Parts: sequence; C-alpha cells; structure tokens
Amino acid sequence: MFGEIISIGDELLIGQVVNTNASFIASRLEEAGVKVVRITTVADEHNQITEAMDEASVRADIIILTGGLGPTRDDITKKTLCAYFNTELVYNADVFNHISELFADRGIVWNELNRQQAYVPENCTVLENQNGTAPGMWFEKAGKIYISLPGVPFEMKPLITDVVLPRLGARFPELGALVHRTVYTQGIPESVLASRIESWEDKLPDKLKLAYLPRAGMVRLRLSGSGAGEEELNRMIDDALHELRLLLPGEVFGEGKDNLEVVLGRLLEAKGQTISTAESCTGGYIAHLLTTVPGSSAYFLGSVVAYSNTVKEKMLGVDPSVLIEHGAVSEAVVKAMAEGARTRLGTDYSIATSGVAGPGGGTPEKPVGTTWIAVSTPKGTLAEKHSFGRNRERNIQRTAFTAMNLLRKELDS
Amino acid sequence: MFGEIISIGDELLIGQVVNTNASFIASRLEEAGVKVVRITTVADEHNQITEAMDEASVRADIIILTGGLGPTRDDITKKTLCAYFNTELVYNADVFNHISELFADRGIVWNELNRQQAYVPENCTVLENQNGTAPGMWFEKAGKIYISLPGVPFEMKPLITDVVLPRLGARFPELGALVHRTVYTQGIPESVLASRIESWEDKLPDKLKLAYLPRAGMVRLRLSGSGAGEEELNRMIDDALHELRLLLPGEVFGEGKDNLEVVLGRLLEAKGQTISTAESCTGGYIAHLLTTVPGSSAYFLGSVVAYSNTVKEKMLGVDPSVLIEHGAVSEAVVKAMAEGARTRLGTDYSIATSGVAGPGGGTPEKPVGTTWIAVSTPKGTLAEKHSFGRNRERNIQRTAFTAMNLLRKELDS
Repeated sequence: MFGEIISIGDELLIGQVVNTNASFIASRLEEAGVKVVRITTVADEHNQITEAMDEASVRADIIILTGGLGPTRDDITKKTLCAYFNTELVYNADVFNHISELFADRGIVWNELNRQQAYVPENCTVLENQNGTAPGMWFEKAGKIYISLPGVPFEMKPLITDVVLPRLGARFPELGALVHRTVYTQGIPESVLASRIESWEDKLPDKLKLAYLPRAGMVRLRLSGSGAGEEELNRMIDDALHELRLLLPGEVFGEGKDNLEVVLGRLLEAKGQTISTAESCTGGYIAHLLTTVPGSSAYFLGSVVAYSNTVKEKMLGVDPSVLIEHGAVSEAVVKAMAEGARTRLGTDYSIATSGVAGPGGGTPEKPVGTTWIAVSTPKGTLAEKHSFGRNRERNIQRTAFTAMNLLRKELDS
Repeated sequence: MFGEIISIGDELLIGQVVNTNASFIASRLEEAGVKVVRITTVADEHNQITEAMDEASVRADIIILTGGLGPTRDDITKKTLCAYFNTELVYNADVFNHISELFADRGIVWNELNRQQAYVPENCTVLENQNGTAPGMWFEKAGKIYISLPGVPFEMKPLITDVVLPRLGARFPELGALVHRTVYTQGIPESVLASRIESWEDKLPDKLKLAYLPRAGMVRLRLSGSGAGEEELNRMIDDALHELRLLLPGEVFGEGKDNLEVVLGRLLEAKGQTISTAESCTGGYIAHLLTTVPGSSAYFLGSVVAYSNTVKEKMLGVDPSVLIEHGAVSEAVVKAMAEGARTRLGTDYSIATSGVAGPGGGTPEKPVGTTWIAVSTPKGTLAEKHSFGRNRERNIQRTAFTAMNLLRKELDS
C-alpha cells in the first residue's frame, strides 16, 4: 500500500514555515504499514493542487492533503477539491453544530466567514475536527483515497491519529503489521553509544531494523519490525530491549511517548514524593517541561527562576558571600540553589541549574556552555559540571535534559 | 524566474527527519528573487530522482537537489545524475586535494569509500564544499540549471549562501526583487481579524499579496510584494502596514523574527525597566519564552512558578483566606500573585497566570480552559478572565501569549 502527502501553502514554499506536518504524517503512515513514496509541497493555487493530485494518484493508493482549509480568502483547497471531484459545496448540519458548540465554549461570536466552514463538498465523508472549525474530508475516486486535513498541527495531528488511521485500518485489513518501539537514552554521544551497542546491533534478528534519532544530548533508539505477525515482532523487540538494558544499565528509559518528563513524573508519583526546581540558565524550561504532563500537580509544587543574583539570594537564600567568592556559575551556588528550593518550597527533591547559555556572558575561565547542575534529595545534594556548545537554545535544552536525567537515575537506583 | 527543490532521502519519507533543508533553501531563493513553485521529497532511488527531475524541469528554471551524496551504499545521487546527463564519473584532482586537506586537519585516515568522493560527473562544475567531503555540483542542460548539494545542513547552508546564490546572481542579472514582510497580532481570532481588515485587504495594490498564518491565538499577517523594484515594493508595504496599524490600534506588533518575547524585551530595555513572572497554569513557560531571547538578563530577573497553593502562599505571599474564599483560579488570587512577584522579586512589572489547563481539574463553574491573567505595573494591577479550549498544550501557549500581550499593550500605551 503506497501513500503520498501533499502539503499546501505558500508559507512552506517561501521557507517561512518548516513542514513538520509532513514528517508527522509520514511517520504515522509508516507505522500503519503505508509506504510513503513522495511528499510534495505546492502553493495555494488551484492548478498546482490538482496537478499534484493527478501525479500522486498514479503512484499512490492513499493521498493525504493538508492546508488551505481556513476561513480566509487565501484558503482555496475546499473549492479546488469540489472542482477536482466534480461536485459542489453543500451545507452540513453536523459541522454547523460542531462549530457552534466550539464557539460557545470559547465565547466567540459567529460571522459570515465561519458560516462558510459548515459547507463541505457533497461527495466527501466529514472527519470531525475536535480542535478547530475546519473539518477533515475523506474522498474516494477510482479506488484511490484522498484525505484533506487542516494545516494547523494542533488540529491535524489528532485527526490523523484518532480518525484517519483507524478508518484506514478498517478499510484495508490487509495493512500488515509494522511494529515500532522507541526507547530513550540521555547524555551518551551518538557515536559512543553506537560503539557500546555494536555487538548487540550485529545480533539483531533480520526482521528488526535499528535507527538512531539524536536530539539535544538525547538519543532515541527505534526498533522497527516487519515481515512477521504483530505478536512475534513484539516478542522479538521485547527480547532485544531486554538485552539492551543489560548492556546499558540505568541508561535506557521510557518507551514511545514516555519521554523524560513523563518517566520522572511516574517515578515521583509511585513514591508519593514531590519536586521543585531552582533555575538560572534554563529560565523555567524544566518547570515548563514537567508541567506539560497532565496531572503533574500531584508531584510538582513549584519553582524559583532565579535569573538575577538578587533573586538567588532573596528567594532561594543563597549566601551573597558565596556568590561573590565562587560566581553564580559554580558548584557552591548551584548546590545552594537546589537546597534552597527544596527547603523553601517544601519538596522531597529539587533540581537546580546555573550556566552560561550564551551568546554573551562567557569568560576565559567560564566560556559559553559552562553549566553546573545539581540535584538535592533527602539523602544529600550532588552536582555535576558540563561543557555544552555555543548555541543558546541547545544549551538550555541540554542542561534541562541532563539535569532531569540525573534526578531520574537517583530515583531509579 | 522559477525554482524547485528536490529533497532526496528515505529518512524524510518515513518522517524520521524533518525537512528543514527545504525551508532554508526556499527562503534563500525567495530572497534572491527566485519563486519556488514546488518542493518534492523522493526516496534514494534512481527512477524516483530522475522522474522528479523531469517533472521539475517542465516548471522551473533552477532545480536544487539535496542529499544522497555521502560515501555509503545508500547514497546514489551522483550515479543517478551521471545517467541523467548521459555522462560519466571522472577523477577530479581539486576535489581529491580538498578531501586530503580536510582529512589531515581532522586526523582521519583515508579509505576507499572516501577516494570515490573525488570522482564527479564529467559535465558538472564543482562547487567546493568547505565543510565536508562531498562537493556540490552545478549542471546546465537545455537552458535549465540543476544544482546538487550534500544533505548535511552544516555543509549545505554555506554552499547555498556563499557559492550558489552569488553564482545565480552573476548568471541571471535580471533576478528581480521579491519582498516579504510579516507582522504579528495576538488574541483576535483569524475570522474576526479577516472581517475587521476586509476593506483594507480589498484596497491592497495588485503587486501585494496577503497571507494569514495562525498559531495558538496568534495570527501573523504576511505581505508579499513582486513585480516592481525592491524600493517601490518596500514603500508599498510600508504604506499598507501604516494603514493596518491605524485600523487595528495597538494590535499590530513585531516584524519578521521579532516575536512577542523579543518585542517585550525591547520595550523593557528601552525603558530600563525589569520584569518577573508568577506562574501557575503556565508552569514556567512565560519565563522560558522570555529567556530564549539573548541578553534577557538585562530586564528579566526571575519567576516564581507557584503550582501548589502552599507555594503561592509561602513564596508569593498570597493570603490563605483569599485562596479558600475565591479558589486559586480567580481574580483576587491572580492579582495577589502578580503583586507578590513584583514586590518580592523587586521588578517594575510582573505577569501572573492561574487557570485550569486540563485535562483534569475542571468544575461546572470553572471548566477546563478557564484562565485568569494579571499584569502588575507601577500604576496598578489589572486582570482579565479568558475561556480557552480543552487542550492542555494549547491552553498553556494561549495563556502565555495572552498575558505577554497584555503587558505589551501596557508598555506600548
């Protein structure tokens, strides 16, 4: 079964927006056993869209289009689809009611542009968009399936996962098993990791394929299995992951969507214990990551983002003389920050960070990238020094992940 | 002058890697006056690559290919290009010397795979790759230009900027101006915005085109100008933006990459004033956004992330009886939080948030999405209630943007 993705939008062609939608859809289709053979990006123009659809229908069985479904004048996908399928827009009461409810929820008043969104091509099956006003649309023509989805990632992603994939599975029972499982490691460079697991990789069964997915000091390892039943593939992957964990004790965590913040939350919740953070260079990023997890209020109590030294003193009780003697980016200060947060916010654990994120602020002794992290626990406080790179965004991310992983290892041990 | 981009690589089609290369090249071409009409992603397969090249050459004058130039077996672009242009690989001494120097620099030993990289198609002009072993290649055939570049961003980007664009400029002196300018609005739904600026949109000169780019309560408006000189287009855009600002007083901010956090920072820095945040439902996200801006330590002093009520009391001085009487998600509490942060962290301004981010925690009176935001200034404290949607991630984002925009309006007025 072959798939193609057509991304519609001038903003993609002028490079203003990176096409993350296509990657998301491609990876979900891949997991469902659909081989994506081409991704095409075209402008919000009638002829370009229909030309791309004609070309895709020669190669693919399933064609997914995103974008151009908004209420404004530059959004022309719906009209184009009508012309392509030789049909016309008709009023759809379900869509109208859905939009009405959504607007009532948000306290927004209707206008004529929104009313138009309740009109859909007569020959399509409407896919309800839980998160927005533009519905998804499913068309079939000459044995090919065309699915049009809004381009807003927040609306498109649940439509793919919760609506499109189940429908495709029901429509094509022959879509074979393709099993993917991903685990995380943190703090081991990709090349070092590859050497350490070389012998394991060599022994993997033919039906399993390994991929390295690095990001900001994290490396995800993905095992993909195909060519056997789902149960057998899952058993093979279980065995392989078991061996991997023995080879890298304490380093492998999470599975699938269970990233570091989810794993940390689960460990804390299981112990009934709480956490706080004291952040300088990460500027609240760790608190933000921890609170992206639903239900995190059960274990996360709060943070002090102490960007200035005065805030480190006043809100975390860091001794001014220690700041003067050692500087803010130092073992003594980062430990005092962690202990200050733990005591003042009244938590069992705390994480602290202090570093030179850049691009400014570096000195010969403490160049940009120099970072101290600390973890305070009921048993004591430990600290680590790291030298990250020169990129501010990446330094913030790497510091956050490294600090969170240090606590994970403590909780896990 | 029309351009197309062909991205080659299986990793893109399975969604393992996001195609940031295409956005980079698209935006550089756009700036150079080349209109990108399509971006195509294909697999590392001979037929797919040549098919995409055939199709692109019908529509475009300049075709840029990336990827598939590495030394390993799955990299087949060079052989494919040889077949496509009916030529053969020949040894190139310049490339050989360049690779030798690069390897000596890095202390790497030659192997046969690397030696093959010194062979290039006979009919191409070699574009020296300062940052890697695979050279860029420039082909001309039937009046069309084909440029093949390595897919590693760190190698590809300097090749585009320093080699390809200057060569294109020399080859096509007629490359005209194409001007883009983007401004931001926050808190006005796309459809409402479209109605409010309808008359303005109708009056835009033919040479300007408008696009709406929505995200999490923000709408960016992009004006693109073509068909005239750069100076004239910029003047047209200046005039249009001036009219737009009159039509939406105080609502239009930022230009290009100057997003809300950058604009806020600039306003604070200009006044020599400082800011702190007191965050409940946003969990540190506002502090994180503010500190992504280099140099933000000049005006951002710190934050208290007060997720639990105890932290609201202990660290921000919120009166426990107010918490009991009104609940954490209330005007009284969010104002007390803002004032507590402003006083305790010693800043001129502060932002506070308290809401039900979801998915849990909603009640009939305060359903998921109910959010209070406050801004405390030297002149007093103001608060607003909002009803956002049901999605946690989006609620966090919308709350952050709404609260930051409220402060921006205060600072701007």
